[in-house]
Amino acid sequence: MERRRDLLAPPAWTNLTLALKFRRMFRVALAAAVAVLMTAQGAWADEGMWPFDEAPLARVHDSLGVTLDSRWLDHVRDASVRLTNGCSASIVSPNGLVLTNQHCIVGCAQAVSPAGSDYVGDGFVAADVTAERTCPGIQAEVLVSIADVTTQIFLAGTGKIGEAFATARQTAIDDAERDACGGDTRFRCQVISFYDGGQFKVYKFRRYADVRLVFSPELSAAFFGGDPDNFNFPRYDLDCAFLRLYEGGKPVATPTFLVWSKTPPAAGEPVFVSGSPGATDRLQTVAQLATMRDVTLPLLAVEQAELRGRLTELAEQSPELRRETAGALFEAENTLKLVQGRLAALRDPAFMAARERDEADLKARLAADAPLAKQVGDPWAEIAATQKTFALQFVVWHALESGAGGGSDLYRYARDLVRAAAERAKPTAMRLPEYADSRLALDEKALFDAKPVQPAVETMQLEFWLTKAREELGVDSPAIAAFLGTESPEALARRLVAGSKLGDPAVRRALWEGGMAAVVASDDPMIQFVLKTDPTSRAARSVWEDDVTGPVQDASERIDRARFNLDSGLYPDATFSLRLSYGKVAGWTYQGQDTAPFTTFAGLFGRATGAPPYQLPARWTGRAQSLDPATVLDFSTTNDITGGNSGSPVVDAQGEIVGAAFDGNIHSIAGDYTYDASLNRTVAVSTVAISEALVKIYGDAALARELAGG
Amino acid sequence: MERRRDLLAPPAWTNLTLALKFRRMFRVALAAAVAVLMTAQGAWADEGMWPFDEAPLARVHDSLGVTLDSRWLDHVRDASVRLTNGCSASIVSPNGLVLTNQHCIVGCAQAVSPAGSDYVGDGFVAADVTAERTCPGIQAEVLVSIADVTTQIFLAGTGKIGEAFATARQTAIDDAERDACGGDTRFRCQVISFYDGGQFKVYKFRRYADVRLVFSPELSAAFFGGDPDNFNFPRYDLDCAFLRLYEGGKPVATPTFLVWSKTPPAAGEPVFVSGSPGATDRLQTVAQLATMRDVTLPLLAVEQAELRGRLTELAEQSPELRRETAGALFEAENTLKLVQGRLAALRDPAFMAARERDEADLKARLAADAPLAKQVGDPWAEIAATQKTFALQFVVWHALESGAGGGSDLYRYARDLVRAAAERAKPTAMRLPEYADSRLALDEKALFDAKPVQPAVETMQLEFWLTKAREELGVDSPAIAAFLGTESPEALARRLVAGSKLGDPAVRRALWEGGMAAVVASDDPMIQFVLKTDPTSRAARSVWEDDVTGPVQDASERIDRARFNLDSGLYPDATFSLRLSYGKVAGWTYQGQDTAPFTTFAGLFGRATGAPPYQLPARWTGRAQSLDPATVLDFSTTNDITGGNSGSPVVDAQGEIVGAAFDGNIHSIAGDYTYDASLNRTVAVSTVAISEALVKIYGDAALARELAGG
Repeated sequence: MERRRDLLAPPAWTNLTLALKFRRMFRVALAAAVAVLMTAQGAWADEGMWPFDEAPLARVHDSLGVTLDSRWLDHVRDASVRLTNGCSASIVSPNGLVLTNQHCIVGCAQAVSPAGSDYVGDGFVAADVTAERTCPGIQAEVLVSIADVTTQIFLAGTGKIGEAFATARQTAIDDAERDACGGDTRFRCQVISFYDGGQFKVYKFRRYADVRLVFSPELSAAFFGGDPDNFNFPRYDLDCAFLRLYEGGKPVATPTFLVWSKTPPAAGEPVFVSGSPGATDRLQTVAQLATMRDVTLPLLAVEQAELRGRLTELAEQSPELRRETAGALFEAENTLKLVQGRLAALRDPAFMAARERDEADLKARLAADAPLAKQVGDPWAEIAATQKTFALQFVVWHALESGAGGGSDLYRYARDLVRAAAERAKPTAMRLPEYADSRLALDEKALFDAKPVQPAVETMQLEFWLTKAREELGVDSPAIAAFLGTESPEALARRLVAGSKLGDPAVRRALWEGGMAAVVASDDPMIQFVLKTDPTSRAARSVWEDDVTGPVQDASERIDRARFNLDSGLYPDATFSLRLSYGKVAGWTYQGQDTAPFTTFAGLFGRATGAPPYQLPARWTGRAQSLDPATVLDFSTTNDITGGNSGSPVVDAQGEIVGAAFDGNIHSIAGDYTYDASLNRTVAVSTVAISEALVKIYGDAALARELAGG
Repeated sequence: MERRRDLLAPPAWTNLTLALKFRRMFRVALAAAVAVLMTAQGAWADEGMWPFDEAPLARVHDSLGVTLDSRWLDHVRDASVRLTNGCSASIVSPNGLVLTNQHCIVGCAQAVSPAGSDYVGDGFVAADVTAERTCPGIQAEVLVSIADVTTQIFLAGTGKIGEAFATARQTAIDDAERDACGGDTRFRCQVISFYDGGQFKVYKFRRYADVRLVFSPELSAAFFGGDPDNFNFPRYDLDCAFLRLYEGGKPVATPTFLVWSKTPPAAGEPVFVSGSPGATDRLQTVAQLATMRDVTLPLLAVEQAELRGRLTELAEQSPELRRETAGALFEAENTLKLVQGRLAALRDPAFMAARERDEADLKARLAADAPLAKQVGDPWAEIAATQKTFALQFVVWHALESGAGGGSDLYRYARDLVRAAAERAKPTAMRLPEYADSRLALDEKALFDAKPVQPAVETMQLEFWLTKAREELGVDSPAIAAFLGTESPEALARRLVAGSKLGDPAVRRALWEGGMAAVVASDDPMIQFVLKTDPTSRAARSVWEDDVTGPVQDASERIDRARFNLDSGLYPDATFSLRLSYGKVAGWTYQGQDTAPFTTFAGLFGRATGAPPYQLPARWTGRAQSLDPATVLDFSTTNDITGGNSGSPVVDAQGEIVGAAFDGNIHSIAGDYTYDASLNRTVAVSTVAISEALVKIYGDAALARELAGG
């Protein structure tokens, strides 16, 4: 059954460990495509992450008084970009210029900084196109079409069970992807399941494998306020960056782009976010939520906290290590805050009581429909019955498979090489899904792109992973014996990193091309380590998928069947596929305190104490008086977004871009489980602030002109 | 009401931040003296931490078939030692020789290591008495008498309320302490409340302020298996150390001592632990347990995990830093494991359901007794009603008061100097309790004893504390503004540590003796920092005591009144006062797996992989063959102990010492809340293993002779 479960695995981009602010965080379960229940009264105003082919036009009209037409939708879709590192973006000029967040390109800026330079800390302004730098590992994808393939996928499996069913389904998926792309390597075709497997669609993307860094502000301007202000608002971050799409060494012509707004949106103005939210958990049963509250999230909280402590102390050892750890530290702090926020929501008895009421209500309505009730059975009880196994096996799966390597690039290279060598020898439908034919181009890009190795960080990551795995599984576990032998985590990590040559792309390419024979013959210690331990990792994955995610998936599908029949106004849970969210510019009121929806440059300078993370770059303090202090810097909106939406364009009713989403307020973290229109807010940086800063701070008149005149 | 709450504050030893393995961990509430409910059928076999004047002789006889007489009790009491760093110990020779755990003297060994030496890592063997080294800050205390002063303390408060009540009570306590000691500075007299204020007794201790290090094994022998094996059994640790009591520069004659057993105890043999357990939480209501589960323990888990990450990374920077961080890292890992174990117990629905049944049962029996029910009211509801305030204020109190300084010695010196200067100007009954006359001798010792300052660790501790306080209270909180001003935690911590002269005992003594005038005139940055911030810390303490611990205390007293009237077989919760625990040598069975109660040297060598923390010291590997492999190294017993019991003698029915308790098994962590005779085990190192190692490994024939011939 291994293959079938993997259809629901996170997409390949989760293999990348780039640091991303508001990115889909580590997933505790594989449920990646589940439908969401509206209240009986219908969705909250502004709720929902809607596929473009199911855009809720009537709902938008009723809620905002705005009529969107298909031209508007097509235009926004064609200008929306998915980045394979887990972010969103948009095309903002006819010359392939792309806007995203600075926190989405930290890994790129780190990787392309020449020795002695720090494009993360000091920012990066390409003097002209020749100075633009290719980001390793990042592919940009623009959705060009959606086709429903539900019937053919369903038909393929009809009358089959078990392994035969799984293989038939996977073959149908592979066929659908191949048919849609027709072998044209300019495209990537991906079958995405929606509504928990109730619907399958082929998303066809124009892919751009050469994405170059054009502009990034300094970290201290993009992430002003640092971790203390993260997920908070009022906020004062210029969290923007520009990339450019290239092909054949030349900028790509992009006649469809979003017009750059010269005015900020007004309070109450309708705005739309077009991006690729990673995952939401709005369908989880109460039993599953309790497991998250009591098992998975507490484990992740403690782990991320300890990792944060390690990275903080490592960063303080030298400026070089501060730069090298910046991305990982950002990710650890961001994940920790997300996990803590989710735990706070789940530990709120009122929140859980509401979920219990919703569940009881659905069950009662199901019971009233005898034929449907018979068909559905009691999937809630089945899911509840798996929770003990979930709790036991989650730790194993996390330690040996999903968290293996602790973020080490060298480990990731070795595992990809070892696994791909084994998998590529099989027919595509029999492989682990991440090595299916349709994924190989992206796999190769992630493997072959040059990226500097940071030995101190790599060693720490491996050591930390091995230490925690030993702690979580127990020192006497056979799996730990297989990983450590008689070495300590410290010594093993040092030996693997010091001896590995996998930092060299040519070495990786040679092993990839040499297949299993070359891999087995390699004396690289990291390759040998993975060859020795991968059977243990794969075994943990099989148990997890067969005993936990498989049975849960079966039960979840039946809950969804009940919803389909008993509810109206459904939208699918997030699946890192393009979605439209509608809303308006708005602050909020919490515990009697009002928060206004706008901040300005004046507020930024008022908050700057001069001490990090409230210290502005020298470039800013020197030119403060040239900025218009009243310029709107950041703003908050009611749009329903989540991790993966980072960098998404915020578009007005005329289709002009007014900002880029980069965060949510603290209440938005509970949005993983439910949307609360009164509190849940998207946070965006405005186009007017970006323009003002480009001209007055960075003196980048050419870029400003490209945006203005585009 | 400030004073009254403080009667229940932890004793002064919690000011010390020495690293202790199985020590009373950081307390989330101040409830330090509460009675414990037996089941309706009476206490579990072997349950209870019994005051020596309430020793359960009949129960011991019924359970173990052993008759203890008053001579046995007096003898064991007179040979039992309380160490003011939060540990227990025993006198084991007529020349003031004291046995405790190595993990109880890590701080001492660190402090007395000369430059270039590492008595923690390499061990310490005093060649003769002239080589024995005074441990800074540690006082040894031997209980000599117990007197009940309940009546006079109750009478003092009769007819008074509020501040007048508190002052009258405190005056009566001060008087009782003064009367009992009669100004004889060889003694320390301490009023301890039992049964949640239902009983007050004066404990009179012979105090020994000069305690010297005699012998310590290497950390890797004492703590073999390190954090992975911590709280686990089978266990292979020689966790012992010897100290000697001095007076007037000479060893103290101690005619009463425990005879050193030459044979290990047998399986099933009755054994007794005599020591000072720090605190238990066996009376907490279900509402309080839920707050621990959802608020306090999760906060501490994340904090300790991050601290552990910092310390681990700091330790890896140099051998010197590894030595300097050893104690703090040990404490962080130990606390983290305790917190995680407690959370596991509290998150177990079966555990909470049992507590709910117990609570409902007591309420039902109370309701059946109308006059008592009227007197008691509904304290459970009152406690439940305070939990929201508890959750809000705990974070404030923890950030600004109880956790202030993050363990920094320089901060502790400064705060003691600033507070004592203010407090000593008041009559003793009006002071913060930790500066009452009866405490000043110990305060002075903690302040004047020389102890090396470790700037890197100090800076990290302060920075970490300030960073977490900012995170927990929010960057815009006025309290955080008072602490940080416009500085970053990093810069402020560096400035305070770099500029402070408080590491010099002479400077501290001059400020102490100069009183407030000298303190205010000091230009020491740490003193100035505390002068500026202490009002904020004191305010947080007042709110916490007035709004949380005060009301909870009032309600808890009434729950206790109900128990006193409705239950039998009560023993008081632990209060770091001398207790006797009875039990027997036994393994246990969990999930069908039996664990035997003994380990041997053969097992130790079998487990040694050569990689830390399973790497034995060179001294051991070189002399392995000379050891008798069958020697019992560690053993497990059913005794009911907790943090604070570390180093406690394990005594047989004849009054001979057969071991020293140093840990509990993983199930014992839930013993904070309830004792489970089937699983809860004490772990001890045997006297025979200590003797064997002293002779065969350490060649310390003199010490072995002193033990054997005593």
